[in-house]
Amino acid sequence: MSKHAISGFPEWTPAERAVEMHVENTLARVFELHGFQNLRTRSVEPLSALEAKGETSKEVYLLQRLQSARESDEPIDLGPNTLGLHFDLTVPLARYVVANSGSLVFPFKRYQIQQVWRGERPQEGRFREFTQADIDVVGQDQLAFHHDIEVAETMLDALNALGIGDVLMEVNNRKLLSGLVAAVGASDFDGVLRALDKLDKIGEGGVREELSNLDLTDEQATKVIEFAAITATTGKQLDSKIAALGLELDAEGEEGLEELKTLLDSLAEFAPGQVKASLRIARGLDYYTGTVYETLLPGYENYGSICSGGRYDNLARAGRKTYPGVGLSVGVTRLVALILEAGLLQTERTSPAAVLVLVNNEEERGTSEGAARQLRSRGINAEVSPSSAKFGRQIRYADRKGIPYVCFVRGDEYSIKNIVSGEQVDGVDLSTWQPDESVSTTVSPGVDA
Amino acid sequence: MSKHAISGFPEWTPAERAVEMHVENTLARVFELHGFQNLRTRSVEPLSALEAKGETSKEVYLLQRLQSARESDEPIDLGPNTLGLHFDLTVPLARYVVANSGSLVFPFKRYQIQQVWRGERPQEGRFREFTQADIDVVGQDQLAFHHDIEVAETMLDALNALGIGDVLMEVNNRKLLSGLVAAVGASDFDGVLRALDKLDKIGEGGVREELSNLDLTDEQATKVIEFAAITATTGKQLDSKIAALGLELDAEGEEGLEELKTLLDSLAEFAPGQVKASLRIARGLDYYTGTVYETLLPGYENYGSICSGGRYDNLARAGRKTYPGVGLSVGVTRLVALILEAGLLQTERTSPAAVLVLVNNEEERGTSEGAARQLRSRGINAEVSPSSAKFGRQIRYADRKGIPYVCFVRGDEYSIKNIVSGEQVDGVDLSTWQPDESVSTTVSPGVDA
Repeated sequence: MSKHAISGFPEWTPAERAVEMHVENTLARVFELHGFQNLRTRSVEPLSALEAKGETSKEVYLLQRLQSARESDEPIDLGPNTLGLHFDLTVPLARYVVANSGSLVFPFKRYQIQQVWRGERPQEGRFREFTQADIDVVGQDQLAFHHDIEVAETMLDALNALGIGDVLMEVNNRKLLSGLVAAVGASDFDGVLRALDKLDKIGEGGVREELSNLDLTDEQATKVIEFAAITATTGKQLDSKIAALGLELDAEGEEGLEELKTLLDSLAEFAPGQVKASLRIARGLDYYTGTVYETLLPGYENYGSICSGGRYDNLARAGRKTYPGVGLSVGVTRLVALILEAGLLQTERTSPAAVLVLVNNEEERGTSEGAARQLRSRGINAEVSPSSAKFGRQIRYADRKGIPYVCFVRGDEYSIKNIVSGEQVDGVDLSTWQPDESVSTTVSPGVDA
Repeated sequence: MSKHAISGFPEWTPAERAVEMHVENTLARVFELHGFQNLRTRSVEPLSALEAKGETSKEVYLLQRLQSARESDEPIDLGPNTLGLHFDLTVPLARYVVANSGSLVFPFKRYQIQQVWRGERPQEGRFREFTQADIDVVGQDQLAFHHDIEVAETMLDALNALGIGDVLMEVNNRKLLSGLVAAVGASDFDGVLRALDKLDKIGEGGVREELSNLDLTDEQATKVIEFAAITATTGKQLDSKIAALGLELDAEGEEGLEELKTLLDSLAEFAPGQVKASLRIARGLDYYTGTVYETLLPGYENYGSICSGGRYDNLARAGRKTYPGVGLSVGVTRLVALILEAGLLQTERTSPAAVLVLVNNEEERGTSEGAARQLRSRGINAEVSPSSAKFGRQIRYADRKGIPYVCFVRGDEYSIKNIVSGEQVDGVDLSTWQPDESVSTTVSPGVDA
């Protein structure tokens, strides 16, 4: 992390940024492979839109023009049109879809990789500016269940392509949870979900206490904790574990169970061992109506979910039209922090250049530039040495920047040396020479990955 | 442009965004080809840093947490630590370089493609959020002149790679201008520069009036307007035109002239016809100390400069160390607006998918997904039809999204049809099939380019 930090506003060094770019570019490439279209929305929304979700409105940064602040001794206007920075990419998506519904083709499949801001109190040590990478499929009035499978498959493909080792997606279904809560005889569905969400933080005892505060009996609380403990990797396994609970599911619960079984068995086909139903996944603070997802890196569970989401049957609504959606969001900044701390990816280069063309003396700089131009015309990143000092010093510049090759120029004769291995090739033909594939990427898996 | 707009916060449609992504990705690729390393800085700086430049401080957006605004009836704090959104990428660069100088390798070559914000009054109709793409080379204590050539070459390569037609870079040198102003006998150098900057807006008469307000005589004003009218494409031509003025240059002026001639003749070698010295380029509002650049698209001069910059001998300073820099900045949002309005690039696709795999019925969806997976494994973007309605309706979905191919699946037999040309191939082998190169990109030159 770079120096001169402002708490909550992370800033990577060039080498760390190379890792972040690898993450962003890989996610984008795989999202496009699956036909998701990039969208970029403005960074601001009016306060009225930011507050529509209620709870999260605490974390908004409002904007005021410096000039207007200077000219006024009034506090900042809290009216509905005051602009604030968006705190997620879902609020802008919902607004965008409604405003542009006439020109979009539904189902609308979009991805967005953008910064979001949360006006957290500085002392909490959380990110106040970070990057999210979201995919969503949004329908008009209807959205088939197979899109719940599609977004999970797309995201697993994308996370697997990062080369950071194993990824585990935990899934659940709000309709199944609703059926289970009803079968237990509890009435406060949202309250039970919020209690379940705290399982990691407050443990089973704490959850029992919360449930008791919601007027659940000990017996009811035990049932809730029993079903929340269920995990399964196949539909069959899930069926038998739920049957063993001896609870009678209502129609909604049965529908949720069917969906969850379908999701599990479909994903198991092409991502074996990467998907698990876990009935404790509630995501109680969000407005999901069906499938919910969380994603962990096994071995790094303490970092929490790196990618979460779910189905909203009412992502947006306008007049008589509804816009159901299903999506997943990667916390890119948090994931990159994990990758860097755990050494899951490493960078050896702080320059994208594969070759540094050396300069004999300032009079011959043009010749070296010609050589670099020839390499670039073939897509090979090449830099010309900034100085014509002794070759030792020029090579040291390449070494410090992690540039793997240097090119010596003698008239129209070229020698290229791999400064890592020490291997040198003379009489190189610049119109055909290629760097080793192993040094053509700047980011490689860490020893732990 | 999308609907529900907030004045000054542009938001592209998916098709327009495809053009913007082409611009951003092409610029990034060419910057890396020349060895520039990506950097991303946080979006905020403390007010003290944003105000350091003086004049531009009018245009800052300050941030205040909604929660703190609710709890207070005080106006926003205008102290030095209050956070504001950055209005350019130069202030963050200068701060970053000083803070991290111990771990950077100089000359530090970085590019940054990020959003910036200007707290303009809404009625002015300017962009208040837009994307800039900057390249800079920053030295420690010294920075050789050949970097002035390097950034111009890199940027011309990048702009040429966009495929938007001809690009003209106009260059000048502040030291030459200083010498000319001194030779004319005027004392207020900054004032003369500011007057020259308005030549486009207020014409020759207006500039004369401004110069007269600066106490220049008619004769002096005429000389200023005469040298400002000089243009040249070679060093030799520049020499003779300046000699014809009959003004005696001081040492600084001679140095500037030598630099400008070197720049012109070096760039003419590999970008013939794309670079012109134009002595009216002043960039009076910025703190440049040598070379200055502006870039026009011939035929679209009324859009103004799409890419500007220059050399700062004091980009930053810390203790006894100085950090001279030279760089160029593309106004990406403005350039994309021009490209879209003038039709210089066009998109035919609002989906990155090259192939839509059709679905016979929901029971056979899995088979179609398998076909899509096979295409994706070979890097071909493929989407599965969201519905299993009649093929006509599925093909219409592809057509509306601009997806050029549809794939019919009959068991393990595949037919692929180009829905633009109508050409259909049966018995396709999905492990070798390739889309036509002409449809593999989503953005193509417009008819006018």
